[in-house]
Order: sequence, then structure tokens, then C-alpha cells
Amino acid sequence: MSKPIPLGMVGGGDGAFIGAIHRIAARMDGDYQLVAGALSSDAEKAQKSADALGIERSYADYHEMAQAEAARPDGIQAVSVVTPNHLHAPVSIAFLDAGINVICDKPLTATQEDAKKLAEAVKRSKARFFLTHNYCAHPLVREARAMVAEGALGKLRLVQAEYLQGWLSGDVQNKQAGWRTDPAQSGAGAIGDIGTHAWQLAEFVTGQTPSSLSADLSSMVDGRRVDDDARISLRYDSGAKGGLWVSQVAVGQEGGLSLRLFGTEGALEWRLQDAEALIFTGKDNQSQRLTRARDRSQSYRTPPGHPEGYLEAFANLYKDIAEVIRGDETHLDRIPGIRDGLSGMAFIAAAQESSTQDGAWTRVGA
Amino acid sequence: MSKPIPLGMVGGGDGAFIGAIHRIAARMDGDYQLVAGALSSDAEKAQKSADALGIERSYADYHEMAQAEAARPDGIQAVSVVTPNHLHAPVSIAFLDAGINVICDKPLTATQEDAKKLAEAVKRSKARFFLTHNYCAHPLVREARAMVAEGALGKLRLVQAEYLQGWLSGDVQNKQAGWRTDPAQSGAGAIGDIGTHAWQLAEFVTGQTPSSLSADLSSMVDGRRVDDDARISLRYDSGAKGGLWVSQVAVGQEGGLSLRLFGTEGALEWRLQDAEALIFTGKDNQSQRLTRARDRSQSYRTPPGHPEGYLEAFANLYKDIAEVIRGDETHLDRIPGIRDGLSGMAFIAAAQESSTQDGAWTRVGA
Amino acid sequence: MSKPIPLGMVGGGDGAFIGAIHRIAARMDGDYQLVAGALSSDAEKAQKSADALGIERSYADYHEMAQAEAARPDGIQAVSVVTPNHLHAPVSIAFLDAGINVICDKPLTATQEDAKKLAEAVKRSKARFFLTHNYCAHPLVREARAMVAEGALGKLRLVQAEYLQGWLSGDVQNKQAGWRTDPAQSGAGAIGDIGTHAWQLAEFVTGQTPSSLSADLSSMVDGRRVDDDARISLRYDSGAKGGLWVSQVAVGQEGGLSLRLFGTEGALEWRLQDAEALIFTGKDNQSQRLTRARDRSQSYRTPPGHPEGYLEAFANLYKDIAEVIRGDETHLDRIPGIRDGLSGMAFIAAAQESSTQDGAWTRVGA
Amino acid sequence: MSKPIPLGMVGGGDGAFIGAIHRIAARMDGDYQLVAGALSSDAEKAQKSADALGIERSYADYHEMAQAEAARPDGIQAVSVVTPNHLHAPVSIAFLDAGINVICDKPLTATQEDAKKLAEAVKRSKARFFLTHNYCAHPLVREARAMVAEGALGKLRLVQAEYLQGWLSGDVQNKQAGWRTDPAQSGAGAIGDIGTHAWQLAEFVTGQTPSSLSADLSSMVDGRRVDDDARISLRYDSGAKGGLWVSQVAVGQEGGLSLRLFGTEGALEWRLQDAEALIFTGKDNQSQRLTRARDRSQSYRTPPGHPEGYLEAFANLYKDIAEVIRGDETHLDRIPGIRDGLSGMAFIAAAQESSTQDGAWTRVGA
Repeated sequence: MSKPIPLGMVGGGDGAFIGAIHRIAARMDGDYQLVAGALSSDAEKAQKSADALGIERSYADYHEMAQAEAARPDGIQAVSVVTPNHLHAPVSIAFLDAGINVICDKPLTATQEDAKKLAEAVKRSKARFFLTHNYCAHPLVREARAMVAEGALGKLRLVQAEYLQGWLSGDVQNKQAGWRTDPAQSGAGAIGDIGTHAWQLAEFVTGQTPSSLSADLSSMVDGRRVDDDARISLRYDSGAKGGLWVSQVAVGQEGGLSLRLFGTEGALEWRLQDAEALIFTGKDNQSQRLTRARDRSQSYRTPPGHPEGYLEAFANLYKDIAEVIRGDETHLDRIPGIRDGLSGMAFIAAAQESSTQDGAWTRVGA
Repeated sequence: MSKPIPLGMVGGGDGAFIGAIHRIAARMDGDYQLVAGALSSDAEKAQKSADALGIERSYADYHEMAQAEAARPDGIQAVSVVTPNHLHAPVSIAFLDAGINVICDKPLTATQEDAKKLAEAVKRSKARFFLTHNYCAHPLVREARAMVAEGALGKLRLVQAEYLQGWLSGDVQNKQAGWRTDPAQSGAGAIGDIGTHAWQLAEFVTGQTPSSLSADLSSMVDGRRVDDDARISLRYDSGAKGGLWVSQVAVGQEGGLSLRLFGTEGALEWRLQDAEALIFTGKDNQSQRLTRARDRSQSYRTPPGHPEGYLEAFANLYKDIAEVIRGDETHLDRIPGIRDGLSGMAFIAAAQESSTQDGAWTRVGA
Repeated sequence: MSKPIPLGMVGGGDGAFIGAIHRIAARMDGDYQLVAGALSSDAEKAQKSADALGIERSYADYHEMAQAEAARPDGIQAVSVVTPNHLHAPVSIAFLDAGINVICDKPLTATQEDAKKLAEAVKRSKARFFLTHNYCAHPLVREARAMVAEGALGKLRLVQAEYLQGWLSGDVQNKQAGWRTDPAQSGAGAIGDIGTHAWQLAEFVTGQTPSSLSADLSSMVDGRRVDDDARISLRYDSGAKGGLWVSQVAVGQEGGLSLRLFGTEGALEWRLQDAEALIFTGKDNQSQRLTRARDRSQSYRTPPGHPEGYLEAFANLYKDIAEVIRGDETHLDRIPGIRDGLSGMAFIAAAQESSTQDGAWTRVGA
Repeated sequence: MSKPIPLGMVGGGDGAFIGAIHRIAARMDGDYQLVAGALSSDAEKAQKSADALGIERSYADYHEMAQAEAARPDGIQAVSVVTPNHLHAPVSIAFLDAGINVICDKPLTATQEDAKKLAEAVKRSKARFFLTHNYCAHPLVREARAMVAEGALGKLRLVQAEYLQGWLSGDVQNKQAGWRTDPAQSGAGAIGDIGTHAWQLAEFVTGQTPSSLSADLSSMVDGRRVDDDARISLRYDSGAKGGLWVSQVAVGQEGGLSLRLFGTEGALEWRLQDAEALIFTGKDNQSQRLTRARDRSQSYRTPPGHPEGYLEAFANLYKDIAEVIRGDETHLDRIPGIRDGLSGMAFIAAAQESSTQDGAWTRVGA
């Protein structure tokens, strides 16, 4: 194992959910050492969080952090951006412009303008930009992509992606719910928070992007200012059709992410809650439960029979990113990046526009 | 047990699928005796089929059968109509006008005009009209309806109904596929054949009918003249939203009928392939697998642990119908009839219209 | 369809469970007409039950019934014996000796002596004896047997059969529990009532009978006079080993019947509660969910996707028996008979003996 | 977060399975820093492995390591022992005697003599001894224990534990299979490797240890010198009965660990392959799928819906151990230690003795 990559983090202070996840993912395989952070915009809080986490260098300001780290010989080689959505762009741009690799949480940004600016920053920077759409790093999702690519389904006809959660069924008040339901910080509701995950998952596995969509966004909870349920129909240039349903008011659902694909020759199904299996069904109606013995991506840390899950998949991304940072681009094409981020933003824009126009079919990315 | 009800059948000759099902359902509890039939429009074939089935009186013509049976003192008290869709109306009308109860397969008719005529015949007849939407007769579907009615879900928010089959994924050539894919005989494709089942199931359990819909109907197989995949969004006057997805090109799927409901207080899920369970999930995310011990409809023939299925549910309808014919209307409200049939036809009409207009939201039954 | 076979029934009056099941099974395919019965040993009750079921000829005594029916030109060709276990032998012998085919419920008898006498009666009679071990008539159980026979598992190593119920967890008082927990009427507890089912299922599928066993029988409920839980280890002459666990105090279990087989080349699993699937797992750890599309026994009445269950499997036996009675012996080898009954009795005897000797390994049938 | 605990490792060099698992578990929450190791008995290999893992101090001899580390002011505070079984005792004793806490893989030792010596070393040492029976650290296993303790099952009647694997179905030749199938290094076969896991899991959840057992151990593969299949019946002083079935020739099974408990009032089931659910079934036959929302052990790192698995459970042990090492004994009682190890050794001894005596009931720990 090579020397750990010095890593920084912006956001992710006390009480944050996704920051802790990124830290575990970075630690899992020993590829990183978290040495610097701007964990909060409040300097005192930032310092306190950094101390609690044993982070050597705490910054109150991410601009300062980007400059200072870039200047140090032992400065960070990558930064994890785990702020609310509206800060993804400015923070990422600051580090990209300082030549530091960025590992940014999804969705890309809160606005289309920000997405554009960020894309330009990625273009001009010598550093890389990675987006943590973690679900596509589950080993059997990678296997599903390989199977589709080699034609196991024949010509793709039907795509159904769902991400159902129930945690916003009521009028929730906490740090997680707070910024996610504030349009200024999140940019979108369920379609941004989990819809982009479902969109990217489908795109990753099928290798196809829908060309147009028809959306019906709802805010089911009184007083909610963002969408909390979205039912979206999809059309592909290939002739395939699809559906994407995401909800945060599907009461009782903890993490109902699933993808179902039907082609002329076979079908594939993957569910997050049974992530260690990939179900292939052929024209003879017989289903095969493919397990990791079938995984060709070599993404497992344990032998068959030892269930891995969400954190391991997240860590798979960090592992691949470490490889790239160290100069090995073998797995670059399976790490989500700016392209996935822009696609997700185009999806959000099209969904919001279609819904405003009572479900009129709307071009994606037009 | 009372004396068996003399029963007739129109359609259902050699090679027919649904006729055999109706016969088993009628036999299961010993409530009927099949004594007359017009099993084919070809007199010779009809006689041959009748002989093979041990049916005493064979008719070559259903008009003649209706008249003759109505005139006999020991004539049939009910007739099962198991022809292709386009004959449902004329056959049913002939018997209704002769004062004979009709047990008709779904969907109601092949055209809206026929549906109207049939509804008028039902109105003017002293006999009754029953429609075999069999899935609503599964004991735990009845239990689901009872739970929704008593408020177990709180206010209903989301409805998702699916019926996925794969048997028409290719260019199938057989008796079953033949008339189902001929618009003249079927009137509609997947939305008529299985879409009306999903529609009625959702309506039966929720007690609500969508007020408008947006549909995208497809014919995925080259040369197919009817829809074989339909993705439909639903809106209810109550504010609930829904989706209905039916497909006959979902390769590998044998009978993927399911209903998922989410309310403010809880969620319910029922799947045909696991028909002996009803999953209730509360706001605490804990799921309960309700089994027949929970069934309050008293619809089981066996003690817990002895799986019943499709045929038993179908027979449940025949049993309830026998009860009604014998004068006991206790369970009349759970037997589908002309109202369900008209609702299904309104669904088909709205779906076809919306799809023609590129998914424009269309009133159901306007 | 040929003319229905005239059928009689002994036992199965008001309140009986298994009699009603036999009647449905006999009716399902229209192969039988129930015309005579001795439904109760109380003449008045017998007549009342017969009237309620529309049975023409009611007898108060089964000897009289056997003689009278044998003497009639239109007499019954078969009789269903659905009494408590201790009457299986005398009733069956009476009919066999009168030359009437017997369809007897399991287990064979309540005592080894009775079993011997019955076996002799079968030998000397020109009529046939069938035993309704219904589970082996599930289509995919038949498919499992075919797969084992053709070597899909390689050399068989491990057999695990379970039948778990919870309905006798407490001190139950009803007609069903009554005779089943009375040693004089039942002969054995759980091992007789459901243990013989599990034993026969394993024997049917594997084609092998264990040569010795070690048993630990328990009576978990205070005051219970028969076993209600049995844990039995099995050894086969082939070198295979096995386990059989049956319980009627496995609280909450409704019908936990399952069979798991492991060979050198593959494994098979079947569960009553998911009876429409047979799980085959190969050496590559990949499982296949085989459904009826795979069934080669042609035992289904409906197309794929329409779940069949307990009653249909039971009716499969009646259907095969009708075929045999009409002279077609094609499927004779898959209908359980006296051999299965004697094997079950040998199992009970060995289990009781081993348990008495603190689990000493005991020869089966020695 | 406090400063990471300096950790050492003995065994776990290149190609080892369990060493890598311990390292991930130690890293997951940032509580440890691996700074010293004797990764191989071959000095050159040890150094190479240490370098590859970024371990500062490499030793060729574990005795030397124990002495040296104990003498350093910044020496390790704990050592992970991940050697083959026959080295567990000497290595653990060396570190315990040097006053260094030991985190040892299971089973405790390869022989009963070693177990005794190790127990004495634990007694005399001021350092602590932990045994990584990781399965009992799954959050819902902890919840199961809490439910049993508070009486959710009533009086316990039936216990069924299984651990089925198929990876030794053939004549496997690799490092993992090598020492596990060599009696000198492993001490026992399947009963040691996975049987002790199942034993400890049942003991942990029920709070009861079987008092006697009857075992049938087999070596199914030609030439195998240890057991690869074991079928064991259990009796508890409380009157409960149980079964334990472990196999490494259950072809196709990847990690079939499960525990089923039945009491007078309810039943519990947990399966490793569906580790995020605990199934509770009451006397009304209705099952509840309890998920982490129900977990009271606070053992999750992620919110509901994000599946955690084997590695997280393993890390739960390391986390609790870190707490204890830092002086907080709150969770000491849920960390397996010498008591669990001795119980497992008593289980192995009794099973081997009983099997030698053709399944005679044998006292455990007599």
C-alpha cells in the first residue's frame, strides 16, 4: 500500500450526515489521511469539529484553505465537499482553481448557473472533479452495466427506476431536513436529493440518457416548499421508454432504491435493500440470482457470503479515486464526474419545466 | 349446501384459456352445475366441446340458447360469458334480456358504444350482471380494502399499481395471443387485457377513482397493432397521485401484479406472486406481514399455512355470486359488476385519448 | 372428459377439516361425483351432513356402505377415507375387500398392527389403495424429483426436511386438536400428523429411504400425551446424511414445510410457502428460481403467473387417481400408496423407539 | 474523537483473509492506528507485508514484539491475533503476559490444553482478552438479545442455529482451505471454524448454554481429515431443545448463518444474508420485520435504508473494544471474551466425543 493521500474536507461538521459517511469511506481502505478541514463556516465550531476528529489543520474559510493547502509541500491532494448543495459550486471551484482534486457530493449544484460555472472550472483546471453517486459503485451494479454492455438484455425496451423514502412524510424539523427542504440551499427537493441518484444509476447501467421526459412533481406535505414526490415518464432516442418515481413521503420506506430493465432478450433487477444480488431473467421466465461470485469488477473486500453494503460501495468510489490520483486511470470510466453531474442538473431542469407545464414532454438538456 | 345452480357458458371451447378457469371456479365449491353451452360459433365444434365436458345441452347460437334456456323450467339461472371481448356485449345483452344472470369476463366490452348498450341492458333487466375481476377476490385484497376503509393508512397520498407480463415480448402466434392483439376483437391491448385488472384492483382497495390521467401507450413489438406497454400517471380529486404501469413485453415476468399504497399514517403492499401476505408498514418503518389469520372476509377454504391462489380467488367470486343468486345479498358489494366495467372502459378511453395527445392530462369518464 | 367417477366418503362430516379438502380436490377437475357417504358414526348426524352436501345415499355404517355400494350397478368406484387415524385400517379394509378403490388420508394407520393388516388387504384386493400425501403432487416437487433422478445434484450428500407449525403451542381444545392429541385415535403426535409428510416428501424427491435414525421427541406443552416436537437425524446407506425437524409448537409458523437437498454438483430447495418456485443452486453459487415454465409434469391448470397452491396439488392426486381408475396407468408411479404408508409407519416406529432409548441410532423398518 | 489507539497485529500477512478484515474493522471508525506487526514467521515476508501496509515496526518474532512493544512508551495498547488456530494461545499468552490487550480471532485455540493455559493467562494478566465472534455485533442481533432478555418470547422452547457454506464441497487447495483442513493447525473442522460462531450466536441471544448434546460429525469429501458437516441436537437445563447444523459442503451456500428461536409467546428469526431485519412472529401468526429503526443498541453509522453488513458488525466489536481500552466499560458485556471462547471449546470437545460414541448424549463442559 502506498502512502495515504492527504485529504481535506469542507462541510461535515457536528451533526452532518454525509460528512461522516465520506470520512468512513475514505478510511475504509487506508488510502487517505484526513489532515485539513473547513468543517463549518463558524470558525469556533470548525475548530471544535476538527479537534474532535483529530484533524490537524482547521480553517474557518474554504478560500483560505484552498490557497494555504495548495501552497504547502505536504498540502492536501484532494478535498471532500460535503456542504449543502448551494455551496458545492463555489467550494469546488475554489479548490479546482487551486489545482486540488475535488470529491464532491451530489447533486452537482443548486442552480443551473452554478453548474455551468463549475463545468468551466473543471475544464480549465489541471485537477480532477469526482461526484459521489455512490450507488453505481455497488459491485453488482457494476456487473449489471457490464452485462447490459455485452448485450445480455438484447435491445433495451423498458427502464424503471425508483427511490422511495418515507422520512419526510411528516413535517420534519432537523438539520438534515432543514436545508434539504429549503429551495435556496437545495435547489430542488426529492428530485435533486434522490432523483439524481436514480437518474444516474439508470444512466450508468444502461449507458443511455433519456432524451425527453414528462414530469409530475408534488409537494404532499402542507407548507413544504420543494417537491417531495415525483413521477416522471422517460423516452429514449433508441425507442426505449422508462419511468422514474422518487418520493420522500412514501411512508415506511427506508431506502427503496431499485432499477428494473427489460430488453428483447432478458431482464435485470437490482435493489439496494438486497444489494448483494442481481436478478437476471431470461425469455424462458427462469430467474437467476447472481451474487458476487459473478462480479467481474473485483470490488469486494470479503469472500462470498459476507454481506457488504452502502459504506463499502461508497468506499469503492474513494478507492478508485485514490487509484486515479496516484496515476492509474484503469477505472476512471466507472467513477462519476462532471458529466454525470451535468446530466443530473439537466434532468432536474427538464423535470421542473415539464411539471410547470402540466407534464408536457420536455427535451432533456435542450 | 343447496342444490347446484344450473349454469350455462358461451365461448370457452377447446383451446380457450379463460373458459377452463371459469369452469374450475364454478366447480370448486359445488355451487353450480354446467348444463348448457354455446362453446363455439361452429355448431360441430360446439357440440364436440360440450360432449367432451359432459354438458347436456349444446347450442350453436347464443341467441337461441338464451331463448331456449329461459323457456325451460329447469333452464340455466346464470351464464358465463367467456368469449373474446367484442362479443361480451351482444352475448350478455341476449341473456340479460332473457332474464338470465350474466357472469362476464373482463374487460366489459371492446368498444365504448357496446359498453353503453350493455349498461342499458343491465338497467332494464331483472337479472344481474357480474364481471370477473378476480384479483379483488383474494382474501387479503379484501382485507386491504377493509383496512383502508377503516383508516389504517390515514389520508391516501400515493397509489402504484403494476401488472407486468412478458409473454407478448416476441411475435407470438397462438389462440390466446391472436384475438388479444387484434384490435377488432380486443378493442385495446395491454390496457384492456391487464390494465383494467390493475385499475379495478386499485379502485376496489382504495375506494377512489382517479379523476384524470396522462398516458403513454406503446407498441414495442414490430407489427403489433395494439398497445403492449402503458405507463400512466393518475390524479385523484382527493389530492392523491398515482401510477399504473402495465406491460406485456416485460420479458420474463409471469404475473407481476402488485398494488402499493402510501398514506399519511401507513402503507400497504400486495403482490399476486406472494398473494398470501399483505404488508403493512407504519410510520415507524416496521413492516407487518399480515396473513390469513388476519383475514376478516372469511374467504379461505383451508386453515392457515395451506397456500391458496388464483383459482381459489376466482372461485370466491363464483361463490359470492351463487349466494346472491340464491337471494343472499350480504356480499353483493364486493362482487365487481357493471359499475366496475364502465369504470374500466372509461379508463381505456381516457388512456387512449391522452396517449394520442402526447400525454395530455385527460378527464376520466368525461 | 369421461363420465364422472361415482365417489363415496367415510368421515368428513360437519366440522371436519380434511373431508372438505378431499371434496374440493375431487370436484376441482370434474372427474368425480360424490354420491354416497358414511360421514359420521352417528346415523342422524351422518344423514344431516349428507343432506347438507347433496349426497344421495347416506349410510350410518361403513361396513354396510361397502357392501351396499359394491352390490349396486351404479355403486361407487372409489371411497375417500377421511376419519381419524385409528379408523383408516378397518374402513379401508372393508372397502378393499368389497373391491372398491380406496383414497385414504395419511398417516396410514394408528398402529403398526393395523398397518400390517391393511397391507395384507391391499395385497389380496383387486382394488387399489392410494394415500393422499398431497405435497408430493405440487408440480415443482415433481420437477424436483425428475431433476434428482437425472443427476442434477450429482451424488446426494445432505437432506434437510422441516415441517413447522405453531397451532398446538398452547393447550388447544377443538375437534382438530382433539383426536390429534389423543394417542388412541392418532397413534402419534407431530411425527404422525406432519412428520410422515416430511418423510414422504424427502423420500419421493430423493428416491432414497433413510436406513437408520436418531430421534429426540418432546411434549413441550404441559399435559400433552403425544409428541409435539421432534428432531431426528437420518443416515442413508448411500452415505448421505439428513435431518428432519417437525414441530407443532413452533409458535407463529403456519405451514413451514420445506425440503433442502445438497449433492456434489448442486442443491435444490422447495418451500410450501413459496410453492411456485424451485431453487436450484450450482457449484458456482448462482441460484436459479425455476418456475412452472420449467415444470415437465404438466400438472398446471393455468398459464404461468397464476399462483396455484395446496388445493390444486391435492386435486392433482385426485386427477391422477381418476386416470388410473379409468385404466390409464401412465402416472401411477407418482401417486403415493401402500408402500409410502408402510414407510411412514416404519419411520414412526423407529422414531419412537430411538427416542425411548435416548436417541440411540435405530434401523428403520428392521 | 480521542487519539487513535496504537495497534499491533500477529499473522495476517499477504494472502490471509481474516487479517485484512481485522484491519478494515480497526480502521472503519478511526479508533486505531496499526503501527506494529509480526505478520509472518518468515522475517523477510513479515517485513515485506509490513511495508506494503505502511506498518512502521515489523517484527519477525511475536515474543520479541510483545517485549519490545511493552517496553516502549508509545508501544501498542492492543494486538490483533489473526494466525491459524494453533497459534492463538501462545501468541495471546505472550502479549497478555506483557500486559498488552489481546483481540483474538476465533475459535479460542486448537486444543483444550491450550484453552486452559490461555484462560489462566487471562486470569493473571492485567490486560484484557477479546474474541472476535463478530456476528453477535450485528445491531439486530443485539436487539434480539434485548428482546429475549425482556421476555418477548416468553419461555424459550426451541433453538435452531445453522451455518451453511459450500466452499469446501470439493477438494479445495488454497491458503484458506489449507490450514482449516489440517487438524494440527485447526483442531477441528466445520465445528471449529463456523460451528463455534453458530454456538456463540445462539448463546449470546438466548443467554442460555446447552447442557448436553448429541452430535453426528461427517467428513463428506474423500481424504478430508476434519469434519465438514455436523448435525447436533441440543438440550438445555431449562427444558428447551435445539439443533445446530453446520456444513462446509452445502454446495452453493455462501454464508447461510441463521438463528431461529421459538418460545411460548413468540418467535424470532435472524439471517446473515438479510442481516438488516429481525423477524418477530407472535402467537397470532403475524410477522413483524423489525429494522434498524427498532435497534436500541445504537450500533449504526448510517440512517435507515443504507444497508450495513459484515464489515460494519466486525467494526462494531473494534469500536466497543476501543471504548473499553479507553476506560469506558458501558458495553463490556456485549463483547465476546474468554468465557465465550471456553464455551466454544467445550462445545467442540463435547461434539467430538459424542460423535465418537455414535451420538450418545454428552454433557457440555463436564
